[in-house]
Amino acid sequence: MRTLAVVTHKGQEFIEVTAAVTEVVRGSGIQEGICHLFVPHTTAAVTLNENCDPDVVLDLVAILDRLVPSRGDYRHAEGNSDAHAKASLIGTATSIPVSLGTLQLGTWQGIWFCEFDGPRNRRLCVQVIGR
Amino acid sequence: MRTLAVVTHKGQEFIEVTAAVTEVVRGSGIQEGICHLFVPHTTAAVTLNENCDPDVVLDLVAILDRLVPSRGDYRHAEGNSDAHAKASLIGTATSIPVSLGTLQLGTWQGIWFCEFDGPRNRRLCVQVIGR
Amino acid sequence: MRTLAVVTHKGQEFIEVTAAVTEVVRGSGIQEGICHLFVPHTTAAVTLNENCDPDVVLDLVAILDRLVPSRGDYRHAEGNSDAHAKASLIGTATSIPVSLGTLQLGTWQGIWFCEFDGPRNRRLCVQVIGR
Repeated sequence: MRTLAVVTHKGQEFIEVTAAVTEVVRGSGIQEGICHLFVPHTTAAVTLNENCDPDVVLDLVAILDRLVPSRGDYRHAEGNSDAHAKASLIGTATSIPVSLGTLQLGTWQGIWFCEFDGPRNRRLCVQVIGR
Repeated sequence: MRTLAVVTHKGQEFIEVTAAVTEVVRGSGIQEGICHLFVPHTTAAVTLNENCDPDVVLDLVAILDRLVPSRGDYRHAEGNSDAHAKASLIGTATSIPVSLGTLQLGTWQGIWFCEFDGPRNRRLCVQVIGR
Repeated sequence: MRTLAVVTHKGQEFIEVTAAVTEVVRGSGIQEGICHLFVPHTTAAVTLNENCDPDVVLDLVAILDRLVPSRGDYRHAEGNSDAHAKASLIGTATSIPVSLGTLQLGTWQGIWFCEFDGPRNRRLCVQVIGR
């Protein structure tokens, strides 16, 4: 398992980590298997989505914030219940096939670390399993 | 890794792929392990849900479309930001236990390919890992 | 694969299962790998989120219920379409790294079984793969 550091700069933002994850896969030497991504936080997540037009992830941030507003009638005293909900809606884990030693991402897919309660110093765990 | 072709016919629809995935698991010869499903697209997803009453997935399409309307104040010029958001909300990967050579789906569970920006020719990657 | 029994007591609630899953990981003897969690139901899910302040998951239940109300203009005659939608939004599977024989949960993360149409007797499948 490799742990990548992800530094976020805003309250809510998607940060692309495709290149760093690709590097871990390459370094693992694994040819056929799965790359497992895991976020060890409760107000952040990981997702795959378009990395060509940067407007796509800006829209995602805005859509999520409309679905679960930062201010609401929440119980949790820290005031970041929206961030916890967004983390569970997007999810803290995903996985990607590895074949011929390469991440089998679709043409338009990039890997995004999703910050919902930043800015913070975050971590992303990357495991490559297979042979 | 096997790649299944999925042809979608509507803008938004859930297409059941349980039989095709079951066939891949059977063909793999793996008795104990995990079946990993991966969608290499940014406006489609994969989920498990009821496959008995077809109204369930029709309701899911309608609920998602109410949550993230097709028309909205979005930046992304292609006009399918809702589809990108739905893909990240449902997710592009899931996995199912395999035991005794069989997918360990629950009684009511089927595997659904989720189209959010069709119709298109899509792909679903299936990996069976284990022994 | 181990199957844990989860008894739910309310219509909608999050029940923490971290201790039971930790026990399965310990019993597996696996030192390095992945713990895969799977819910074989269509109106329940599994997620990771804060297990320190119990208000967080109460907020999550309320946020999800505001997003997908129990009563709505749904087709499915059983009247639990909201529960099916919540199951697909949160997801029926997740996975957690295992290293040095221990689940690599973040400081604030707990594992939650999410009931959306209880009370019921439920199951959670736990697989630990690796070496």
